[in-house]
Amino acid sequence: MSAGPVLAGPDGRIPDMSAQRRKGGEVMAPIRVGLLGCGVVGTEVVRQLQTQADDLTQRVGAPLELVGIAVRRAKRIPEKAAELGVPESLFTTDSAELVTRGCDVVVEVIGGIEPARSLILSAMEHGASVVSANKALLAEDGATLYAAAEKHGVDLYYEAAVAGAIPLLRPLRESMVGDQVHRVLGIVNGTTNFILSRMHETGAGFTEALEEASALGYAEADPSADVEGFDAAAKAAILASLAFHSRVTAADVYREGITEVSAADVASARDMNSVIKLLAICELSPDGSTIGVRVHPAMIPRSHPLAGVGDAFNAVFVEAEAAGQVMFYGRGAGGGPTASAVLGDLVAVARHKVVGGRGPGESAYAQLAVRPMGETITRYYICLDVAEKPGVLAQVAAAFAEHGVSIQTVRQHGHADDATLVVVTHRAPDSALAATVAHLRTMDAVRAVASVMRVEGDLES
Amino acid sequence: MSAGPVLAGPDGRIPDMSAQRRKGGEVMAPIRVGLLGCGVVGTEVVRQLQTQADDLTQRVGAPLELVGIAVRRAKRIPEKAAELGVPESLFTTDSAELVTRGCDVVVEVIGGIEPARSLILSAMEHGASVVSANKALLAEDGATLYAAAEKHGVDLYYEAAVAGAIPLLRPLRESMVGDQVHRVLGIVNGTTNFILSRMHETGAGFTEALEEASALGYAEADPSADVEGFDAAAKAAILASLAFHSRVTAADVYREGITEVSAADVASARDMNSVIKLLAICELSPDGSTIGVRVHPAMIPRSHPLAGVGDAFNAVFVEAEAAGQVMFYGRGAGGGPTASAVLGDLVAVARHKVVGGRGPGESAYAQLAVRPMGETITRYYICLDVAEKPGVLAQVAAAFAEHGVSIQTVRQHGHADDATLVVVTHRAPDSALAATVAHLRTMDAVRAVASVMRVEGDLES
Ligand SMILES: NC(=O)c1ccc[n+]([C@@H]2O[C@H](COP(=O)([O-])OP(=O)(O)OC[C@H]3O[C@@H](n4cnc5c(N)ncnc54)[C@H](OP(=O)(O)O)[C@@H]3O)[C@@H](O)[C@H]2O)c1
Ligand SMILES: NC(=O)c1ccc[n+]([C@@H]2O[C@H](COP(=O)([O-])OP(=O)(O)OC[C@H]3O[C@@H](n4cnc5c(N)ncnc54)[C@H](OP(=O)(O)O)[C@@H]3O)[C@@H](O)[C@H]2O)c1
Repeated sequence: MSAGPVLAGPDGRIPDMSAQRRKGGEVMAPIRVGLLGCGVVGTEVVRQLQTQADDLTQRVGAPLELVGIAVRRAKRIPEKAAELGVPESLFTTDSAELVTRGCDVVVEVIGGIEPARSLILSAMEHGASVVSANKALLAEDGATLYAAAEKHGVDLYYEAAVAGAIPLLRPLRESMVGDQVHRVLGIVNGTTNFILSRMHETGAGFTEALEEASALGYAEADPSADVEGFDAAAKAAILASLAFHSRVTAADVYREGITEVSAADVASARDMNSVIKLLAICELSPDGSTIGVRVHPAMIPRSHPLAGVGDAFNAVFVEAEAAGQVMFYGRGAGGGPTASAVLGDLVAVARHKVVGGRGPGESAYAQLAVRPMGETITRYYICLDVAEKPGVLAQVAAAFAEHGVSIQTVRQHGHADDATLVVVTHRAPDSALAATVAHLRTMDAVRAVASVMRVEGDLES
Repeated sequence: MSAGPVLAGPDGRIPDMSAQRRKGGEVMAPIRVGLLGCGVVGTEVVRQLQTQADDLTQRVGAPLELVGIAVRRAKRIPEKAAELGVPESLFTTDSAELVTRGCDVVVEVIGGIEPARSLILSAMEHGASVVSANKALLAEDGATLYAAAEKHGVDLYYEAAVAGAIPLLRPLRESMVGDQVHRVLGIVNGTTNFILSRMHETGAGFTEALEEASALGYAEADPSADVEGFDAAAKAAILASLAFHSRVTAADVYREGITEVSAADVASARDMNSVIKLLAICELSPDGSTIGVRVHPAMIPRSHPLAGVGDAFNAVFVEAEAAGQVMFYGRGAGGGPTASAVLGDLVAVARHKVVGGRGPGESAYAQLAVRPMGETITRYYICLDVAEKPGVLAQVAAAFAEHGVSIQTVRQHGHADDATLVVVTHRAPDSALAATVAHLRTMDAVRAVASVMRVEGDLES
């Protein structure tokens, strides 16, 4: 795409030329956009490119021209073309060819690792900037994509990969880049949020709530990426990478899904005036030398701002040294909202093609290590069925003490054979808390560990 | 700063050179930063430049070098220099000279129209990109600053001007730029939010609550910019400009402050299970041809997410066609939070100096006209003291009907001489609502119009 030589000034910096370029007022050649995938998100991208065409032209400084749409199944092309009002000839099943057609920008909304990765790399090699919504790929192998973008001098943007329509990555990557982020905490998966909400509302167990979610289209045919926490873990890896300028992959993330959350856990939460949410948490250690990245269900007080976040919504808190706490809230998924984020990125990278410049590349200079979950400082809620005998509380307390875990509150319910001890701990290393639970399970005085749940925020007790 | 010729490719586009530049791995010349003003915000900017120096170098790709700090009062320099641990020689009272010293970036945190504007223009003329926190100037004359930035090929960033630490302008300007924004609505002034909160908590009148705010340092010596709504109006103008790609100045904004909000209004709100907040509202008309921009107190239901926004916090909703509703929440003012936003901008514009490129310029292509407040569609809450005579309600209802205003709910309280009618209208042009109120005031049956307040959100009744 480039030809003439470009020379930096004597100070080694590149003079900016946009003013002199725009002055001419010449009509710009269109920006050629290739679209990979035309499913839930891709369809909305095409729609918005159509309905917003004039505005996008103004905002980019040149028209956006859709040069091809790659899908997998040829037989669905006529229907899609008709639905979107575009010629069938715009569609192709040869995605590998589309990315070599001299696109200025390739939008990847296929999902999954392959062929998405190869297609993106090939697109970059052919000079295209890339906009992707692919959290799985970014979290597994973002470094490879960034390196290719760097090598070929193109942009890599992926706002839509985390929290759908909510501007979150750009604020982290750019607005808060002058500050030190301490913590990112949020609800980033709508399916699990729906299921947990239903469990709270109806008292249903996990399986029943999942069935309802599937029936209502809130869960995919194979729900494991959501309910096992893989989707949230990928997002957590991306958030941690950006917040802490370190390379964090999905494999680095401690991950517990919601499949083990029981109706009893939910009832326990209700007794504590709390709710259970699947949280993604990325934290800097107090000395700033390591980071913790985890996804797990947690009990949070009803008064916590995340407690009220409903079904399809996502909400993320970012805590930074100077900024304090900032919260972002909005629709975390769905074709329209996700396409909104894709289009924002598309305008940004297309503008760069028009006026020059590039967005931030990978920033992993801090190279902070991810500490194991065992070293992460957490708090537990533990509900025990115990024999109502004198001395039981003392034995239980001794078990906590043995592992160096101090108890914040303990409450005893019931009498005779049916006593329950509800313990909320102070903060301690997760390994010590886990060891305490394991120890409790072996004690004669403890009939059963009825419920164990990590706690975030201050439970009222 | 530039010297060598720069040639665009045959397609008229500028090839990106950042990859080839960074490859050399050479140490970059420092980015020279001039700071105008060292008060609440400036002091924190200097602090963060110091404590974050290594990280900022990595994130920018070159060290940031503070080349001078301009203040007004020479006699305070020794104290400031000592407090910040920087040499006194770094300070100057000659701000006009500082901006001609070949700065790469000038940070303007003086405030007000002059000399801030002249200094910024001079800085740009001398090749500096500008980061400003100056909402008053941006709202009054942003177009002049943008034109100068365009002419001299430099950046103009001002994230800190609206909603302090909350990333809001960049999301609007960049993340949501592929979408169509319909509405921006929020709480953007902390002082008035504190005063209104106190009025709700204690039942105090405006004057009393203002005194308390002053005593606690929440209000400035001259509080008029805040309580008369000028500060919020400037922010509304900036938000509307960015959201609707049109030039909107502070003078275009319909503005009502909180000085007329009475203890009776607050009591009325309480009766309606509502609170009064000073809102900034920017809206596209339903046909997309005009915009409304206004700042006024409004009654919102307690269940509204803005109802719970406390003292020093700001919260802003952005509603867009595809994204749906997105919310941003955080600290709206204070030295640290505001400096966080300034530093984010500083990193962005400094990066552009290092790797080339420029941020978005003015985007006012849509040129939408601002419609008069009278044509804006609003809803009113009206509380009337009426004579308890047969036929009063019919007379009152007739007055509404005469102005084409339809009533959503009406409630009658009390008996005998002391009856009260509480009316909540349906949506109608503000001029029709205002005319209705004026008419009611002239009616014999109406002893007094005890309270009138615009309504946002759905009041429960
Ligand atoms: N859906 C959401 O709410 C959401 C939210 C945020 C992020 N995302 C991300 O956005 C991406 C797309 O999600 P989606 O929900 O739109 O997926 P989808 O509905 O399953 O659509 C996938 C599209 O990719 C096409 N495709 C599959 N393999 C292909 C191949 N080898 N070559 C060319 N095209 C191929 C499919 O073709 P056929 O039409 O022929 O099947 C389909 O059009 C994923 O990375 C997802 O994680 C989605
Ligand atoms: N404070 C906040 O929370 C906040 C939040 C968002 C945005 N802002 C914006 O940030 C800007 C600065 O606010 P601030 O609260 O930091 O104000 P401030 O505390 O009053 O400080 C103003 C600084 O500017 C200096 N100054 C005044 N006139 C000058 C001149 N002619 N030449 C050089 N320096 C001059 C002052 O010098 P002396 O020190 O000698 O007086 C002082 O250092 C304003 O635009 C404000 O609207 C502030």
